Amino acid sequence: MSTNVSRVVLAYSGGLDTSVILKWLQETYGCEVITFTADLGQGEEVEPARAKAEAMGVERIFIEDLREEFVRDYVFPMFRANTLYEGEYLLGTSIARPLIARRMVEIANETGADAIAHGATGKGNDQVRFELGAYALKPGIQVIAPWREWDLTSRERLMAYAERHGIPVDFAKQGKKSPYSMDANLLHISYEGGPLEDPWTEAEEDMWRWTVSPENAPDASTLLEIGFERGDPVTLNGAPLTPAQLLAELNRVGGENGVGRLDLVENRYVGMKSRGCYETPGGTILLKARRALESLTLDREVAHLKDELMPRYASLIYNGYWWSPERRMLQAAIDQTQSVVNGSVRLRLYKGNVIVAGRRSESDSLFDDAIATFEDDAGAFDQKDAAGFIKLNALRLRIAAGRNRSPL
Amino acid sequence: MSTNVSRVVLAYSGGLDTSVILKWLQETYGCEVITFTADLGQGEEVEPARAKAEAMGVERIFIEDLREEFVRDYVFPMFRANTLYEGEYLLGTSIARPLIARRMVEIANETGADAIAHGATGKGNDQVRFELGAYALKPGIQVIAPWREWDLTSRERLMAYAERHGIPVDFAKQGKKSPYSMDANLLHISYEGGPLEDPWTEAEEDMWRWTVSPENAPDASTLLEIGFERGDPVTLNGAPLTPAQLLAELNRVGGENGVGRLDLVENRYVGMKSRGCYETPGGTILLKARRALESLTLDREVAHLKDELMPRYASLIYNGYWWSPERRMLQAAIDQTQSVVNGSVRLRLYKGNVIVAGRRSESDSLFDDAIATFEDDAGAFDQKDAAGFIKLNALRLRIAAGRNRSPL
Amino acid sequence: MSTNVSRVVLAYSGGLDTSVILKWLQETYGCEVITFTADLGQGEEVEPARAKAEAMGVERIFIEDLREEFVRDYVFPMFRANTLYEGEYLLGTSIARPLIARRMVEIANETGADAIAHGATGKGNDQVRFELGAYALKPGIQVIAPWREWDLTSRERLMAYAERHGIPVDFAKQGKKSPYSMDANLLHISYEGGPLEDPWTEAEEDMWRWTVSPENAPDASTLLEIGFERGDPVTLNGAPLTPAQLLAELNRVGGENGVGRLDLVENRYVGMKSRGCYETPGGTILLKARRALESLTLDREVAHLKDELMPRYASLIYNGYWWSPERRMLQAAIDQTQSVVNGSVRLRLYKGNVIVAGRRSESDSLFDDAIATFEDDAGAFDQKDAAGFIKLNALRLRIAAGRNRSPL
Amino acid sequence: MSTNVSRVVLAYSGGLDTSVILKWLQETYGCEVITFTADLGQGEEVEPARAKAEAMGVERIFIEDLREEFVRDYVFPMFRANTLYEGEYLLGTSIARPLIARRMVEIANETGADAIAHGATGKGNDQVRFELGAYALKPGIQVIAPWREWDLTSRERLMAYAERHGIPVDFAKQGKKSPYSMDANLLHISYEGGPLEDPWTEAEEDMWRWTVSPENAPDASTLLEIGFERGDPVTLNGAPLTPAQLLAELNRVGGENGVGRLDLVENRYVGMKSRGCYETPGGTILLKARRALESLTLDREVAHLKDELMPRYASLIYNGYWWSPERRMLQAAIDQTQSVVNGSVRLRLYKGNVIVAGRRSESDSLFDDAIATFEDDAGAFDQKDAAGFIKLNALRLRIAAGRNRSPL
Repeated sequence: MSTNVSRVVLAYSGGLDTSVILKWLQETYGCEVITFTADLGQGEEVEPARAKAEAMGVERIFIEDLREEFVRDYVFPMFRANTLYEGEYLLGTSIARPLIARRMVEIANETGADAIAHGATGKGNDQVRFELGAYALKPGIQVIAPWREWDLTSRERLMAYAERHGIPVDFAKQGKKSPYSMDANLLHISYEGGPLEDPWTEAEEDMWRWTVSPENAPDASTLLEIGFERGDPVTLNGAPLTPAQLLAELNRVGGENGVGRLDLVENRYVGMKSRGCYETPGGTILLKARRALESLTLDREVAHLKDELMPRYASLIYNGYWWSPERRMLQAAIDQTQSVVNGSVRLRLYKGNVIVAGRRSESDSLFDDAIATFEDDAGAFDQKDAAGFIKLNALRLRIAAGRNRSPL
Repeated sequence: MSTNVSRVVLAYSGGLDTSVILKWLQETYGCEVITFTADLGQGEEVEPARAKAEAMGVERIFIEDLREEFVRDYVFPMFRANTLYEGEYLLGTSIARPLIARRMVEIANETGADAIAHGATGKGNDQVRFELGAYALKPGIQVIAPWREWDLTSRERLMAYAERHGIPVDFAKQGKKSPYSMDANLLHISYEGGPLEDPWTEAEEDMWRWTVSPENAPDASTLLEIGFERGDPVTLNGAPLTPAQLLAELNRVGGENGVGRLDLVENRYVGMKSRGCYETPGGTILLKARRALESLTLDREVAHLKDELMPRYASLIYNGYWWSPERRMLQAAIDQTQSVVNGSVRLRLYKGNVIVAGRRSESDSLFDDAIATFEDDAGAFDQKDAAGFIKLNALRLRIAAGRNRSPL
Repeated sequence: MSTNVSRVVLAYSGGLDTSVILKWLQETYGCEVITFTADLGQGEEVEPARAKAEAMGVERIFIEDLREEFVRDYVFPMFRANTLYEGEYLLGTSIARPLIARRMVEIANETGADAIAHGATGKGNDQVRFELGAYALKPGIQVIAPWREWDLTSRERLMAYAERHGIPVDFAKQGKKSPYSMDANLLHISYEGGPLEDPWTEAEEDMWRWTVSPENAPDASTLLEIGFERGDPVTLNGAPLTPAQLLAELNRVGGENGVGRLDLVENRYVGMKSRGCYETPGGTILLKARRALESLTLDREVAHLKDELMPRYASLIYNGYWWSPERRMLQAAIDQTQSVVNGSVRLRLYKGNVIVAGRRSESDSLFDDAIATFEDDAGAFDQKDAAGFIKLNALRLRIAAGRNRSPL
Repeated sequence: MSTNVSRVVLAYSGGLDTSVILKWLQETYGCEVITFTADLGQGEEVEPARAKAEAMGVERIFIEDLREEFVRDYVFPMFRANTLYEGEYLLGTSIARPLIARRMVEIANETGADAIAHGATGKGNDQVRFELGAYALKPGIQVIAPWREWDLTSRERLMAYAERHGIPVDFAKQGKKSPYSMDANLLHISYEGGPLEDPWTEAEEDMWRWTVSPENAPDASTLLEIGFERGDPVTLNGAPLTPAQLLAELNRVGGENGVGRLDLVENRYVGMKSRGCYETPGGTILLKARRALESLTLDREVAHLKDELMPRYASLIYNGYWWSPERRMLQAAIDQTQSVVNGSVRLRLYKGNVIVAGRRSESDSLFDDAIATFEDDAGAFDQKDAAGFIKLNALRLRIAAGRNRSPL
């Protein structure tokens, strides 16, 4: 347990859990609590957090709209690597944490706070992400993680604590409380826990919130065209959009078409496997689109090297190392490749499918139909060169075979 | 051009092109031609090739059903790595070539032939795959690649040559000849060339042969359960099937549900980009199912290491290095991990989607709901351990920050 | 602090520190202590530990000569990867820990002990290596690490405790106690701490124990020939030797010739940098010899893949993950390559230098002077093939340049 | 054979071989030959090439001192990765080729030449390096490689051709011609061929030209201090030196102390193994010094990632892909890490040994003796954190062991 804390910045959602934490910090540490509430596109109002914080005597309240910064400086740079954790997960929760950690540290610096506090549990990845970020940005900061410290280890105790301290519990809401642990931002919404803890059981249809099921999606496909500059999407159907606008709009149209559901068992950094379900409509569309455009504009060896480095880059972000020097090293390599990723991709969305219907790049395509054609290419490629190419590539294999090394 | 060839083994499909090659070899090299025709599940009869070869005076004719060997010894080992070339392509053509090369060399050894010949062009990957395989297996073999040698460089010349030499041209068939260059086996069917040479143009619906479009697939989903042993699928809906039977059945049911279409621009080993369309229904289902089972049964670091090695393994196969020592080295690593990949995966196929509906492994699951749960875990995991874990992982970042190295 | 320990296996050297730990365990936990003392070639008698343990009332005393097992099953498998941590360190301490962890767990199983204890500090790598090994081999084991628990945090307190409990302190020895923290086994001896804590200061000559300085080594070089089978050394100057004999003999002759000193700053797994000096005479010779033989017998791509995987394999061992599935996966890949690493290497040792004076492999050399020669090769290699090889390898670069992508 | 060449830029050394090529190009292609002779520090006068070229009627003669550019823009950037090919070779020849290719292309652009020509053989790596560079920089360039085209395939024929065309042969020099094929520049001198073609035979002492043998080196060690800025060496013993000056001086002092000899079997890109001997005194010193400084200033994960990427980066340069986009991508990652590599390294050279005698970085050291110390650290590091760190890192291993997965 941290000691001698006089002022703490709390990541505050306005919900029951972080309200209890707010009170518990005041009571346990006898310190000033400063609240920080961010709009990252989670789809809930952030302003109501102000009145709740005020009601508990908070004097310094930070409520901020970080949506553009989130998508521009975190989501898009990550997307440049075509990042997937364990082959499937688009890292929607992971990528929001570095920004929250950064703002908490900045607020601590502004307000002279000596600690930060968060509501993540001691079993999950988020505690790691918040705290690695905070330590990397302000090495002397103290971290208070109430879920690792207190004895409010059941919902009953938590509710009792709330009642005892006059924290309003919306019992109507609590009564029909979702059985899932959820997290949302402009990139995704996630579900864990409850019925999902049996990986043999399919998620119930009414769990999903952002997407219709493929079955309930329209019977006609929707055609999109996304324009990219330097690897980042900048237009949708010809109209320029800001990063957050563009991602929000793709979430909307993707969700309508049943795009972006995922049901996974993943490996947490803290050592256990967990089951998670995710809806990432816009991200799913962008990944497909970016790959299509890179297939046209990136050099082969660059594309392959990106693919080989990607799993490690994804692990770094998943594990909470956004603010690490090795992430910056990899980002430098990735970003160096993107100046040529300019052009457009046409996609059809249909009942959960994202289908590439065309890709082009006037300035940067490396696709050369004169060379690739199976028709007569007017000498653009001398087929006889292939014999020498194969012969020299085969040489080491032939020498080995000549030494009676069987490849069988 | 190779010289002093007295006997050559030709990869012979029975079609017009390889019939012209057969005749051209006899005429140009004055050598005996031995034909080899393999059933790899391409969906066309192989027996008719016998009469055609006989009609051209071929005395030694090899016609073989290699479907089980193909799936068991090539497709399934490749699948153990969750192999995708450039993030998307399932390597359906690439993985058939090593087997054909092997049988051609074995037939050459049996018959005393000093050369092999194939009908692959000088611009593609297949020439490389055939020839690297042949050289690796029989270093002194000669290779004749007529498309790199002759002057029959247009369809008109080829047809004229056929007519001149009495090679029957099925004009009805030729008249409605597909504009696509195609290749098929039990894993996939591929399309290149013709209208596909413009990557901005979507493939026409009537190109696709194995799958219905998602739009035309049934309105109800189909539920499957696939059982795995040591990483390979062995049962479908509880019934044991041989490798070829299982893949064929998944192709059928996947195709009915619009599963497995791909439209790509890929990087050929010989240096240019090309557009390809693929249908891989069974393979697409198996990849999803295998990943789901591995998510439950593989250790985290093993899974990550597999993901990092996969792109390189995929390139090896794409480039024709199946019969190389580096492929065997990687295969040893991959296979070493698979003894625990036992269990079942339940999937729903619906209009192009492959949805994981459950995964379980009684013997080998590492998913531990007592530890993963957000509920009280009765001490299975001490949340306080997380603080030390984070502190030590943060130490190097804190030291750096203390030295005024900003991570921003 | 662990609780309810009734019987603990202690890694016991017989020295003052672990004698204090022995007594402290008896006193603090009120449990039976079982001692385990291993001869790993550290160059000190292990039998004296028996009387000391008996004097403190220990009833079950395990004293074992593990030298052959250590070299054969740990050092040599690691060497097959040409393993160096951070480009220089031969992992002499790291590789001994898995064997000790294994024997401690086995003794715990035999004796019904519920815990193990070790004398490693809370700042170093060894605690991690011991404990990860123990947990991997016996997941329910308890671990007692006195240095993380007790309050004997200075040498004075430790000595006072010893005196208070009648633990004999060899004051003569203590008086001239080395200022260095040392560890030794058949692979190396290491030095940390004391004057080494300033990385700008060179180690004093009288610190080094196993090697003479290059200046003091003989003026004439010593010629050696080492024979290898399947990647492991089996003969020295023609005489077959066991693994431990061979390594001991190389240590002797290497040490006489000033071979194998290292002075490093390394990155510990627990997050800080530390300065270490090492003497690894035999290992230094074997690394040079093995690389020379692999240069002759391994395929190029296999050798390159080994080099790329090596840093990760080295980190696994350094960090204590010998008993992990990812280490076994990598080991499978490495071992798969070694069946052809047969032959001999001739070396000259001279004042700190290890100079390769020749390498040969009658059965497995891939060096083909008929092909490599700059003289006329009688057609073994057609130089014209090189043009096609270069042309196709250049194709992607030419296409890019044709699109005005400057490589400058 | 290339056709329609009207003007060709020849890499011309002034020696017999390239003089014959000069004449042969004039005669065979009937084209203007422009000569290009570069001083890269090979230790031979370049001006004499002018008179020889003039004597053969060459009108445009380029003779350039590229030493500074070579070391600053090629050698030092490569060194930032601590680059070694196949664990040992410092790439002295490989790294000079991209600069020569670049200048040849630039001269071709200036003079309107449509081709370049070089004197590299068809079996080696240099042809690949020259030509890949030229094609990448000027995709339409033609390349003439006489050794792949002509019939002057023995020394006798070459000499006869020279005599027939009045090319002066320095018979005195020819008579005592070295049996080795050599290449030299500021980074190294290399030897191949002749007696070296038997890898079991040690190189003769009188082959070596730049270094004395360790036996003949001084009996007293030489102390050096090298200062680095942003990863590149900038001072020697306190005196600022240009890149070429610094490397030349290190070559001198290293050579005097017997530093930098290598005797290798390496894998050529064109498929065979070859034996090479190298002297790289300055490079050997710099590699050791740079690693020492990075050990103090680089983050652990950054250092490890650099080590993992290095073998691939080395292969790219060895194989001739300096002017490729994948090399630039890796260079971006490497260079991103070097801004903190500032400080000094003290080294002792003694009879072939390069011994680190100290390293320091006032601005950027991450070595923190307060944390690393084995003495009381006044709370800089809480040893109890280690328990949680180990517990969570062990969790996946414990879960697996609990499922009866034996790690043995």
